[in-house]
Amino acid sequence: MKISRRHFNSALVVGLGSIPFRSFLPQATLRVNGKRIMDHILALAEFGKNPQGGVSRVAYSDADKQGREYVLGLMRAARLDVNIDAAGNLIGRREGSATGLAPLLIGSHVDTVPEGGNYDGVVGSMGAIEVAHTLAENNVTTRHPLEVVIFQNEEGGLIGSRAMDGELTEKELDLVSRSGKTIREGIKFIGGDPAKLADVRRRKGDIAGYLELHIEQGGTLDTEKINIGVVEGIVGINWWDVTIEGFANHAGTTAMNNRQDALLAAAKFIEAVNRIVTSVPGRQVGTVGRINALPGAPNVIPGKVVLSLELRDLDAAKINMLFEKIQAEAQKIAADSKTKFDFKEINVNIPAPTDPKIRSLISDAARELGLTTKLLPSGAGHDAQDMARLGPVGMIFVPSVAGISHSPREFSRPEDIANGANVLLHTLLKLDRA
Amino acid sequence: MKISRRHFNSALVVGLGSIPFRSFLPQATLRVNGKRIMDHILALAEFGKNPQGGVSRVAYSDADKQGREYVLGLMRAARLDVNIDAAGNLIGRREGSATGLAPLLIGSHVDTVPEGGNYDGVVGSMGAIEVAHTLAENNVTTRHPLEVVIFQNEEGGLIGSRAMDGELTEKELDLVSRSGKTIREGIKFIGGDPAKLADVRRRKGDIAGYLELHIEQGGTLDTEKINIGVVEGIVGINWWDVTIEGFANHAGTTAMNNRQDALLAAAKFIEAVNRIVTSVPGRQVGTVGRINALPGAPNVIPGKVVLSLELRDLDAAKINMLFEKIQAEAQKIAADSKTKFDFKEINVNIPAPTDPKIRSLISDAARELGLTTKLLPSGAGHDAQDMARLGPVGMIFVPSVAGISHSPREFSRPEDIANGANVLLHTLLKLDRA
Repeated sequence: MKISRRHFNSALVVGLGSIPFRSFLPQATLRVNGKRIMDHILALAEFGKNPQGGVSRVAYSDADKQGREYVLGLMRAARLDVNIDAAGNLIGRREGSATGLAPLLIGSHVDTVPEGGNYDGVVGSMGAIEVAHTLAENNVTTRHPLEVVIFQNEEGGLIGSRAMDGELTEKELDLVSRSGKTIREGIKFIGGDPAKLADVRRRKGDIAGYLELHIEQGGTLDTEKINIGVVEGIVGINWWDVTIEGFANHAGTTAMNNRQDALLAAAKFIEAVNRIVTSVPGRQVGTVGRINALPGAPNVIPGKVVLSLELRDLDAAKINMLFEKIQAEAQKIAADSKTKFDFKEINVNIPAPTDPKIRSLISDAARELGLTTKLLPSGAGHDAQDMARLGPVGMIFVPSVAGISHSPREFSRPEDIANGANVLLHTLLKLDRA
Repeated sequence: MKISRRHFNSALVVGLGSIPFRSFLPQATLRVNGKRIMDHILALAEFGKNPQGGVSRVAYSDADKQGREYVLGLMRAARLDVNIDAAGNLIGRREGSATGLAPLLIGSHVDTVPEGGNYDGVVGSMGAIEVAHTLAENNVTTRHPLEVVIFQNEEGGLIGSRAMDGELTEKELDLVSRSGKTIREGIKFIGGDPAKLADVRRRKGDIAGYLELHIEQGGTLDTEKINIGVVEGIVGINWWDVTIEGFANHAGTTAMNNRQDALLAAAKFIEAVNRIVTSVPGRQVGTVGRINALPGAPNVIPGKVVLSLELRDLDAAKINMLFEKIQAEAQKIAADSKTKFDFKEINVNIPAPTDPKIRSLISDAARELGLTTKLLPSGAGHDAQDMARLGPVGMIFVPSVAGISHSPREFSRPEDIANGANVLLHTLLKLDRA
């Protein structure tokens, strides 16, 4: 039996309230409203819009605050029971039909990097709200309570989700964020209460699961023309600052064989990082993104270089193996160039695998929707990695055209976004029943 | 017959005035007062002295102005007829015995780089004043007029000597120097008159010759334990800014084989510069001293790098040959790394050979003093290169311990400095007679 949405909705609105229909309604035919998602993405794009394209909606900025108010309205329109938690996360709740169950969470973030795009975080946020809206319009009630969570300040260090899993420290609250405000000031600015962060803290088992829809931010799905990425996990990220000490000297009077050129040693190191990271199979990445050579004059041989080294992989052991090889190579370069290398660990995010059962549900949901899938890691950090400390998580990727992200040129196609939101919807329904 | 200095001086002071004695006085026995040079070097070191060692006597700073006043006093004590020319150069003149001859110039500079040492420029300046003082004390009058010239702002672009040979442009006067003052303001500050620069302009033939004593600033003489360097010429210096365009992208989500990493391309370029410059025999040098990678974050693949490339050699054709090889290699790196290289020529100083006859005179003078010599290029720029446009020039190098220069650790031994000043004295006397 095929029931038109219009007929279906009318019947529900007229008489059936919020009684659980999952046992007898054809939930498999439910679809999100793709046009509505796009309307919301375009409307949100006005907050912090840059004249030259893209958006700067940095956490705790006026644009962020105003964008969040717009999002709160969308959540209310989706018939969610809305509040701002003490950490400043937006939480829209919809009660479940069963009693005593932990909530299922879906969500993402709406803050952006400076001069970012309109898809990173936004697709998952608008997708999650749309899923709730679709359920409400169709009067479908899940067994578990449903919470749509729009985490605050993802781009500035996963602040909202780290408050929720208890990782955010008092000391960190006093760090200055990109907005110019400290995180403490920023939380107050967006309606939270930094003195009450203990209230938002959840423990392992407090959530039944977390699902996040996101753009891939890489080029794999786009290149291989695959509809949906099933995320294996969120890579670990290790970041070191590497200091190379040579000896600054006159570039005209110091013979080539008499130099201790820290930048030449750095150049060999950057090449070695690339060579070592690509020397073994896999999807690991290694990047030198920042470099500073001192004194930094065209006519002085650099005496000191400080550069960043970042390694990412799903497997922490592989990161360690690569780092050991890189360190050994650095020692060779140091000996050859009469320089000295020093490695200082700045930050370590351990890998966060997704739940294997949820991965299967995502694949099933996609297949039932006629969509192709591919298992792949998330090379970027996400709020999901913090939620993984509280319960099983799953992530759904949709293609990023040309793999471009954190750029005004970031783009995902409306049909891919709708596909992703439908996969989110049906994965949620499957997880709810599991 | 041996005449003690004391006896000799007394005789001169008593009755002989400034009558030329060169035909019957034993000039070969003349020696500078090495201790006095060192006293003057140490006294001058107080002006702009850094608490952590070395000196910052940047041109047009208060320390520079005060240091110059001290130097003016030394010039007067050396019985020179002193004035500050319109460009701000200190000129101490001593008339010659013959008429109608162009002057012989000796000198150097007393300004320093920020956090520099006490020998670069200072040794030649104090040495030249000491030579004049020795001549005066011994009542030796040269045939040619003698001018001791302390050029202003050598370190900031040979400003004083370029004013003298007419190269300094009106436009350049408005550039801001390291002191924070424009060059125009700086010239006024030190007692010159930037509106009257035409007055200081000299033409080819206006000088009979220029001799400059200087520290080597490299390690050749020190390593090879040679007393005196006879400078073949001042190298040409070509400086380019090299821009490498790649594509900035997310360091976590962009697979290694999908990157256009401008910094990785820059690293290969820096290695190539070193390889190409050292691939042919000779004393040429090539340096990448400055690098800027954008956007410059540990988690973003650099999309753009700007770096400096500097090549120096006595032979302009060799510089061109090396540059062509470097450009060709850059094109290969660009193709391999999907980046784009652009070279922008910033500055070219053509090589300035010294006068072969003066080189011989320097070697002869050193030999007669029992000193070893070596012919070598000057890898650094000097005021002598501008004087080479006006007449024959010669440069005398003394050893720099460990080849260190432009550093508080710059050091030359007192005996080497005295040797250099004696070679300057006797080369001057030979040139005067030649």
